[in-house]
Formats: sequence, structure tokens, C-alpha cells
Amino acid sequence: MKFSPLFWPIKLQNNIIYILDETLLPQKLNYIRVKNFKDGCKAIKEMKTRAVGQVILVFYIFLQVLRQNKNKKNIHPILKQVARCINATRPTLSFRMLTDMVLVWAKQGAPLEECMLGFLDMLKNKRIQQAKEASKLIQDKDVILTHCNISGLLPLIAEFCRRENKHISFFVTETRPYLQGSRLTAWELKRAGLDVTIITDNMAAQVMQEGKINKVIVGADHLAQNGDIANKIGTYQIALLAKYFKIPFYCICPPASGAKTGKQIKIEIRPQEELLEYQGMRLAPKGVKAYYPAFDITPHELITRHIYLEISR
Amino acid sequence: MKFSPLFWPIKLQNNIIYILDETLLPQKLNYIRVKNFKDGCKAIKEMKTRAVGQVILVFYIFLQVLRQNKNKKNIHPILKQVARCINATRPTLSFRMLTDMVLVWAKQGAPLEECMLGFLDMLKNKRIQQAKEASKLIQDKDVILTHCNISGLLPLIAEFCRRENKHISFFVTETRPYLQGSRLTAWELKRAGLDVTIITDNMAAQVMQEGKINKVIVGADHLAQNGDIANKIGTYQIALLAKYFKIPFYCICPPASGAKTGKQIKIEIRPQEELLEYQGMRLAPKGVKAYYPAFDITPHELITRHIYLEISR
Repeated sequence: MKFSPLFWPIKLQNNIIYILDETLLPQKLNYIRVKNFKDGCKAIKEMKTRAVGQVILVFYIFLQVLRQNKNKKNIHPILKQVARCINATRPTLSFRMLTDMVLVWAKQGAPLEECMLGFLDMLKNKRIQQAKEASKLIQDKDVILTHCNISGLLPLIAEFCRRENKHISFFVTETRPYLQGSRLTAWELKRAGLDVTIITDNMAAQVMQEGKINKVIVGADHLAQNGDIANKIGTYQIALLAKYFKIPFYCICPPASGAKTGKQIKIEIRPQEELLEYQGMRLAPKGVKAYYPAFDITPHELITRHIYLEISR
Repeated sequence: MKFSPLFWPIKLQNNIIYILDETLLPQKLNYIRVKNFKDGCKAIKEMKTRAVGQVILVFYIFLQVLRQNKNKKNIHPILKQVARCINATRPTLSFRMLTDMVLVWAKQGAPLEECMLGFLDMLKNKRIQQAKEASKLIQDKDVILTHCNISGLLPLIAEFCRRENKHISFFVTETRPYLQGSRLTAWELKRAGLDVTIITDNMAAQVMQEGKINKVIVGADHLAQNGDIANKIGTYQIALLAKYFKIPFYCICPPASGAKTGKQIKIEIRPQEELLEYQGMRLAPKGVKAYYPAFDITPHELITRHIYLEISR
């Protein structure tokens, strides 16, 4: 099976972490070298990688620290410091669950390296299963609207469909302000030989109204226990529109966090410059304000079907 | 009363037409010189000016032709040629009504120059009245969401509000792909000393859900006889969201066209490069397709109140 570079965007080789720099895609396929945990945390904060990339990165940061300190007698204080640094990077995404897991393993005296590598291996297999499960919801000739990027899962879903002789195509919102839709999703779908059409974020209702869309599939950055999700800003309004047009709305979820409902998920407000400028080009008049909530909450009742990622620990 | 440059973006001086080049705003306040009707039609086709600017331009094109041919015995064939050229520029916008008006005046032997200048004068006054009427729908401290650009009417509405001691502020969607919201609307509002915040097009539901928005005000490029409107792509989904969040949705309309309903209005599909590139910068991978309907239809039942522009001829 051939994977999108976005399916597993982090590598660990000779104890150097390589992060696929998504901010340079689609122009350059470049990996950032990370030599210590502080640089790793910085890469998370600067959104050099997202979603599952960040989960993988969290474990690789711990693995790197472990290997760099293998002669130390007491690794615990260092692990705690690393956990604190990771947890402080971003408000919406809960890394706490991951860092707690590592600290508990350490406290129990479990073989840390094997635990972490085992976890990542399970994660990989479960994600492949998710793609397979999603593919079962799709019919031949379906046109799927997606938003932002689901880290390599869409090409995989299309591949599972193809094996069942179901040929599907995609519409993707460009996903302002970072353009993950056009830069990442359209790139990986095109690369996999799939039919993909980009629209601006304000065309969702129009393409639905024209009858062009049969299904919506999005990912999620955060899943609350009641099924509410936090995902890239814009997801909520697509879900409202899908409901209005009676189009099934599927969400490929990460493991549920401790939040009981979406109301408990804090929305990250990012710097307004990220919206007012694009790659150094000013898009708006000087001195004008902007508002940039990076995520929104889609309540569970708008989600036709969750495709869960069950993680056993 | 001080007007936004976008309120009357075309000038006619010494029989040269000057068109405010909206594609260069907000960086440069530059006027394009137009010396003949073919260049005038080209400027319409290339969207150098929009909406009311195009209406003014249509009459200035005729005025220029008249003055250039004042010694000709039979001006009728030339006027017909000009009308054909104007009507062929863009599918969604109906210039037919305007060009027919001029041809009828000519046929009736009416004083063409006075008819046209009188019409433009009336247009100006009616538009000021529209702003005044809209201002009556607004309460003190209202926050108004708008999309695209309403050609200088929003600063005027705010000015009428201020005279009644009502202080209002604005959220504006950037309005991809041309960014008329950030480039034009945010610019003219900021210039008039008003409080304006830019959001991306995918944040409309989020700001409504947060309770930040009290009213939506948009313009329209086309009004059908049943009250359906065609306006910049993205208007329709904002109207659907406003309905969902029970936020009044007001539309400042042009005169109604001959179309009975929105279904009779042809949506212009523009070149995909306008979406895949921004001012020469490539935003998406090479070879990927895009779909760019430039307008959408908002059905009348989503419009809380139309603010009509009644034109007497």
C-alpha cells in the first residue's frame, strides 16, 4: 500500500527527528531537522505539522530525549520537563493525554521505548482501519467534499474504494487562511492520481445546491466524549450546510479527550497577521483588525457518522 | 457629505473616462484612462469596476461616444454597436436594460446627453436614500456582518447612523478569491474612521454562533422580480447561516431586472486561474482543477428585508 507523505509526516532516523514542513507544500517537499525537545515543541507551536503529525512528534520527542539520556540514572525529571513543554504549545489540542501516558509508563517502570514504538505501530494500523471503514460508507461515483486536510487518509480511502471498484472524486475547500485544502489535500489527492477540484470556502453552499456533492468527510483535531468535535475553522458551517442540503457528514476522529462536550474545548485564537498576510504578501489595508479563531466546534447532532479511532493502552 | 471613492468610482473629465482600478486597492488609488468604448467594455469584462461602477461606466461610455461623434448626422448605428459591445461583456449582469434605455431615448429623439446625466444624478440621490433607509433598520451598538463590497454604501449607512447617535461596527468576510471584502470594504470603512474586523469566509458561522453579529447587510448584482438576488459567491451560504442563527439579513438591491426568479439568472463561471493564483502567486499545486462560479442566488425567503432602488425613467 502506497501512503501519502502526509499519512506519516514525521521520521526518526539516527535520533534526529525529521518533520515534513507542511508550510512549504506543495512547492517543496522538505523535512525540518529537530535535534532537541525544545525545537520539537517550537515546531508544534508554529504548526509545522498538524493533527496526527503532532501526535507522532510528541512520541518521537520523548524517544529522542530517552536516547539522548540513556546513561542518566533518573530520567523522570527530564520527562516531566518535556511533558510540560509539550503541553504548553497549543490550547485547543490536548497533548495532555499523550504526555500523561508516557509519564505513567515511566512511573510503572515499563519499557518506555517499546511502549512508545508499540503505540505508534498500533496508531498506524488503526488509522488504516479507519480509512477502510470510511470507504464502506461510499458508493461508486460519489463526489466527496472535504475541508482542510485529514493527514493522508483521503487517498487511502480512495484506494480502498478502488479495490471494491468504486471510483470517487473530490471537491476540496481551499481552507483559508493556511490553505491546507489546496496546498495539502489537493496535492496529495492529485499525486495519488485522483480527480480533485478546489473551491473557495464561500462556495460550499453553491456546490451543494448544484447537486455536485454526495458526501462530506472531514477530520477532527479533538473529539469530546459526547461526540462533539473541534476541527479547522469552517468545519462547523459546512456541517450546518450539509444538514440543510441533507448530505451525509462523516467525521474521522482522533481518540476522545477528557472534555465532556464541545463547550469544554478551548478555541485557540491565533495571531491576526496569519489572516492579513499570505507568505509575506499583505492582503488587507494596514491597520485593519482581523479575528482568527483557528478551530470551531461541530456539535455531534450534525455528524451523520463518526469514524472512531479506538486506542487501547 | 463625504463619500467613499467606491461610491462613485468612475469620472468623466474632458471626455476621458477615469475608472478607479479596484484591482489595485488598497495598495494604490489609481484611475484607468479609457478613451473609447472598446476599452470601456474591456474594463467591464476584466472586472476593473463592479456593480454600480459598471452602471455609471455604461452611461459614460455612451456619453463619450456621443461627444466624440457630435458632428455625425446619424449616430444610431454607432449607439447600437456600442450597446452590443456592452451587452456581450458579462453573462450574469444584465446591462441590456440600460443599453435599451439609451437606444429608446435615441429613437424617440430625446436630448440624449441630458437624459443620461439626469439618470446618473437620480441614481446618485436614490443610492443616498437607500443608505438612509438601511440606517433606520440599525440599532446603536449593532455589529454588522457584510460580504464583498456594496460600493461605498456602508460608510454612508454608518454616517446616517452617527447622526442619530447610533454607533455601529463591522465584520467583513475577506471574500475570496478577489478579496473585495478585505481590499475594498475594510479599506473604505477604515478610511471613514469606522471599526472593522476582517474574517475569512469560513468563519461566518463561528462569529454568528459566538453572538458577535446582530445584522447582515449585503448588496446584490442582480434582483429578480420575485425578490431573489444574485450576488458575489458566498452570499447564499451567509444567508442560510443567518437564517439558522435568526440574524436579520438585509439586501441593498439594484433595480429589478426582467428575470422572474433567481433561476432565470445565469451564473457566470470565471476562469479557474483566478482562484488558483493570487496576484501572480500560485496558491495550489500545478495541474489541479478549480471551480469558480462568481455569483450565487439567494432566494427571497432568506432575505429579511430588501432595500430597493426604484428607478423612474
